[in-house]
Amino acid sequence: MADGATSGKDGARPGEIAGALPDAFDAGLYFIGRCRTPFADRAACPHTGDAEAGPLCRLDIAPAFRPALAGLEGRPFILALYFMDQARRDLLVQTPHGRGPTGTFALRSPVRPNPIAASVLRLIAVEPSGLLVRGLDCVDGTPLLDIKPHRP
Amino acid sequence: MADGATSGKDGARPGEIAGALPDAFDAGLYFIGRCRTPFADRAACPHTGDAEAGPLCRLDIAPAFRPALAGLEGRPFILALYFMDQARRDLLVQTPHGRGPTGTFALRSPVRPNPIAASVLRLIAVEPSGLLVRGLDCVDGTPLLDIKPHRP
Repeated sequence: MADGATSGKDGARPGEIAGALPDAFDAGLYFIGRCRTPFADRAACPHTGDAEAGPLCRLDIAPAFRPALAGLEGRPFILALYFMDQARRDLLVQTPHGRGPTGTFALRSPVRPNPIAASVLRLIAVEPSGLLVRGLDCVDGTPLLDIKPHRP
Repeated sequence: MADGATSGKDGARPGEIAGALPDAFDAGLYFIGRCRTPFADRAACPHTGDAEAGPLCRLDIAPAFRPALAGLEGRPFILALYFMDQARRDLLVQTPHGRGPTGTFALRSPVRPNPIAASVLRLIAVEPSGLLVRGLDCVDGTPLLDIKPHRP
């Protein structure tokens, strides 16, 4: 993969390095629900979420997983993991705006081998079918992977 | 799945609720490396990692992904995502020691539908093949999924 690294192709910008991904996945993910946000596409998403002043959003939980919400009531914050499924996964070095070439693991970009975002969200309300939150930064419909309690 | 939930079977403790997992995965993960810790099994792992006083550990990065480390030098902290591959994935409600039945999403237990741990680690050194860190809490050999910069 490092040997096969190429630069500047497939839409990569100058200075960016793409690697060949492994032939097969090593493990699998279940989508436990969806993020509901006012952001219709990536251009509409904020650069980072704002857990205090960001818009009210919803984490819709699939019926099968709703029993796992019990006990979240009254917690001020959660950590949400979600899957940035529109992002390419093969860039090892990227050139974000205003910065020189930087390794993917030194960036919070959604473009990464496993495009999993981790965001601390303000928990506004617990409903039977999901959570009302502030702080999401993703496109409406983004698949949700996990919710954990968060201690600031 | 909620309809098929059962309690107390398959090693679940009284009060715990297991659900049937979906028939297929929704997305796939690549293991980008391995966590190297002094903890040989789950019994040896601390309840939570300690990014200041915890033992020195190593994040070994697979050769193909090493170019993505560029730019991490000098950062005090990282967020590491890793895959707790020894944990069962079907418990919706758990009864941790000293607590009553609690929903999985209100716990930091490795037992969850997507057993992805998220830990803030102190970055001690960046080497060509990986990172020296403090703060890991997992079994030696645990698959690594992602590294991101972290701002406390």
